[in-house]
Amino acid sequence: METTKFAKFTAEFLGTLVLVLMGCGSAVIAGADGTTGVGLLGISFAFGLSVVAMAYAIGHISGCHINPAISVGMVVAGRMKAAEAAYYIIAQTLGAIAGAGLLYLIVSNQAIFEMKEWALGSNGWGKGYLGEYNGTAAFIAEAIFTFIFLLVIFGSTSTKNINGGFAGLAIGLSLVLIHIVGIKITGVSVNPARSIGPAILAGGEALKQVWMFIAAPIVGATLSAAVWRSVLEKS
Amino acid sequence: METTKFAKFTAEFLGTLVLVLMGCGSAVIAGADGTTGVGLLGISFAFGLSVVAMAYAIGHISGCHINPAISVGMVVAGRMKAAEAAYYIIAQTLGAIAGAGLLYLIVSNQAIFEMKEWALGSNGWGKGYLGEYNGTAAFIAEAIFTFIFLLVIFGSTSTKNINGGFAGLAIGLSLVLIHIVGIKITGVSVNPARSIGPAILAGGEALKQVWMFIAAPIVGATLSAAVWRSVLEKS
Amino acid sequence: METTKFAKFTAEFLGTLVLVLMGCGSAVIAGADGTTGVGLLGISFAFGLSVVAMAYAIGHISGCHINPAISVGMVVAGRMKAAEAAYYIIAQTLGAIAGAGLLYLIVSNQAIFEMKEWALGSNGWGKGYLGEYNGTAAFIAEAIFTFIFLLVIFGSTSTKNINGGFAGLAIGLSLVLIHIVGIKITGVSVNPARSIGPAILAGGEALKQVWMFIAAPIVGATLSAAVWRSVLEKS
Amino acid sequence: METTKFAKFTAEFLGTLVLVLMGCGSAVIAGADGTTGVGLLGISFAFGLSVVAMAYAIGHISGCHINPAISVGMVVAGRMKAAEAAYYIIAQTLGAIAGAGLLYLIVSNQAIFEMKEWALGSNGWGKGYLGEYNGTAAFIAEAIFTFIFLLVIFGSTSTKNINGGFAGLAIGLSLVLIHIVGIKITGVSVNPARSIGPAILAGGEALKQVWMFIAAPIVGATLSAAVWRSVLEKS
Repeated sequence: METTKFAKFTAEFLGTLVLVLMGCGSAVIAGADGTTGVGLLGISFAFGLSVVAMAYAIGHISGCHINPAISVGMVVAGRMKAAEAAYYIIAQTLGAIAGAGLLYLIVSNQAIFEMKEWALGSNGWGKGYLGEYNGTAAFIAEAIFTFIFLLVIFGSTSTKNINGGFAGLAIGLSLVLIHIVGIKITGVSVNPARSIGPAILAGGEALKQVWMFIAAPIVGATLSAAVWRSVLEKS
Repeated sequence: METTKFAKFTAEFLGTLVLVLMGCGSAVIAGADGTTGVGLLGISFAFGLSVVAMAYAIGHISGCHINPAISVGMVVAGRMKAAEAAYYIIAQTLGAIAGAGLLYLIVSNQAIFEMKEWALGSNGWGKGYLGEYNGTAAFIAEAIFTFIFLLVIFGSTSTKNINGGFAGLAIGLSLVLIHIVGIKITGVSVNPARSIGPAILAGGEALKQVWMFIAAPIVGATLSAAVWRSVLEKS
Repeated sequence: METTKFAKFTAEFLGTLVLVLMGCGSAVIAGADGTTGVGLLGISFAFGLSVVAMAYAIGHISGCHINPAISVGMVVAGRMKAAEAAYYIIAQTLGAIAGAGLLYLIVSNQAIFEMKEWALGSNGWGKGYLGEYNGTAAFIAEAIFTFIFLLVIFGSTSTKNINGGFAGLAIGLSLVLIHIVGIKITGVSVNPARSIGPAILAGGEALKQVWMFIAAPIVGATLSAAVWRSVLEKS
Repeated sequence: METTKFAKFTAEFLGTLVLVLMGCGSAVIAGADGTTGVGLLGISFAFGLSVVAMAYAIGHISGCHINPAISVGMVVAGRMKAAEAAYYIIAQTLGAIAGAGLLYLIVSNQAIFEMKEWALGSNGWGKGYLGEYNGTAAFIAEAIFTFIFLLVIFGSTSTKNINGGFAGLAIGLSLVLIHIVGIKITGVSVNPARSIGPAILAGGEALKQVWMFIAAPIVGATLSAAVWRSVLEKS
């Protein structure tokens, strides 16, 4: 029993580590320029394929949330107990910090490395951040994107859905989609842990703005769980 | 019973909202330039992955048409009643308008926002629109693309097809394909709701040309349903 | 009975039409430049996703060969009778010509249209063709790529393979792969029908070189069938 | 019995040949520039889709390791005998050399061909190699990436995982992911055979540095197997 609990903790820790290291790593190492780097499309695939990979690797162990907004949404939807969600969220946050740490370890070994504002793939908004959208747009976008992301999660993993095996693909590809659309607004979080990891190491503006990437995804996830329970799969 | 009907309506409304917000959003927010934006390939994936995501999220609730041409095709193919199709089409059209509205809400919060001709990812053709193809090419292309799209839908969801679980992937990836080929011609509609949503908010040329993106997809869908019934799966 | 045979013919005709119209169309309409067009990667996805789409649409009707080299390989592997293969190959060739014809119909409606050497996405090699590889490289590449393509087809559709439902994805994605690697050499055929269609309309060098895109794929397919039967799945 | 063993050997030989020919071929033939070539994203898809294609083609014959680090990891995890792993590794290494040889055969037929340092898609690091990361970053990255790659392999093929059919997709797409992130560091190996093949033909720096692409992946694979056995799926 204790073992199973520790396995779940390790799974959520490693899964979130992979998401942050590989998703943020694609932006930091491979670059957002589509000619010399992998481009915004490549970064979008990196985040989404991290979820596809982890879903089929650890999904049967922990459910592969690797995102506190998902664990919160599962509690609101009545599919998880709050105490277990809290345990998951600790693992996810530590994993995200470890992922950002490993990324720093790798890139700081490059001769031309320099720690800039919003470094390590941090989320942000406003002057100096990608498309320079304001805070209102950032909050609306993050809440809506998380709402949509959770809708895919609830629907594709529903016990009424006979194609449950495809959930990992559908969820991961929906994260590719969300990044394609949203990178220029906030870099896309929809996941408080994914934002906390890089922000703690990058400090500065990233850390000052991290509250929004905790608040907006939780608002979006809660709304999505409510709509799911009360309308789409009323029982 | 009433609940189920409302769940279907909500599913079609939300699904079409996601398709328009994310598909058109990728063009408007992320950009068609492959070096600084996600490029035409990224936009193609955004439209197609919206369908993949929604197919596995709401497919078991409403069938995930999120496209009036599909609902019309299903009626012609004898798989749906006209009254239910009408109900679906209302939900789809409202969802598309809501999706375009949310997109406007987000992008109008960016300092450099400006409402241009064919804004918000509207479909169109002729002078000033992408590849500047004429109306004949636009109509032929939209009708053929919808014919092909419906062929994939009929075949992958056929009760004679033992790989029905893959339908969501096959249909979504075929929409990626159609966008890769057709964006420069019309921006690709193959879906009257997807065209009506942005056109209503953008006005101007987009609204004047929207009739074609209602007519051509319905012609293509009807032909596809006829070929499917009379030749490919004659019963 | 007769109906089933006609359904198979129609399926192979339409499937090959879609492959040529959409695959070649992506190159002709959307463009090989990765900044302003869909790039070589986008064209690669267009060809491969055409196969994914058609595999799940018509696979349960005709097996979705849509390629004479596959039908020949199936005969050599003992999975199909020569007479039926001949019937398939006629449908495929007519479908490819129709696909190239529809592509011509669309693009000739664009003001800036001009019929160039190797037009309509024709395959080729040598001076003036993409990477300017010579005929030896072209023949070797086409034969090897077809060998690999058929290997994926034999393996993923083997009755000993319990994951048969994934065959359409695996085969289509392997065609994406082959195009990623080989476009600069020959534009990638591995399919005589796909080469014959555009060559007949384009004439000139495309038509003079089309013999290689019949010969090399058939050599590759025959070798692959022989290795499959005699070594990999000896019965 | 002997036949089966030879079939496994042939499968591993051909699978690794395809991985090296197509993965490295995408870099050498199609190019890392995203405007005129397939870009880093295209190369990433080439490596990953080679695995997807081979997984569904030969997975039911040999398990489709096509990577000595995987065979070593399987031994450490207790899923394979050392003697069989040795047999597999010989087939993989010979296949990789053959794949690099075929690639040389094709590209040496192009007029502008020139054998450069780190030719034929060789892995490497340091001054003159892509992002010019140092050896420490290269070793850490290769070990971590192989750790993650093996995690996906163990998890997606676990007998406790009911979605085993998706393993080929999950594993292949995780290799796409790893390449998106890591190409600029080492070109990405995570596979000693994939590095040995091109290095033997390219010689020079590639051959001098090849030890790291044997050592680091084996360290990563061994650690991953240990974590998998002792924590994630303790039995």
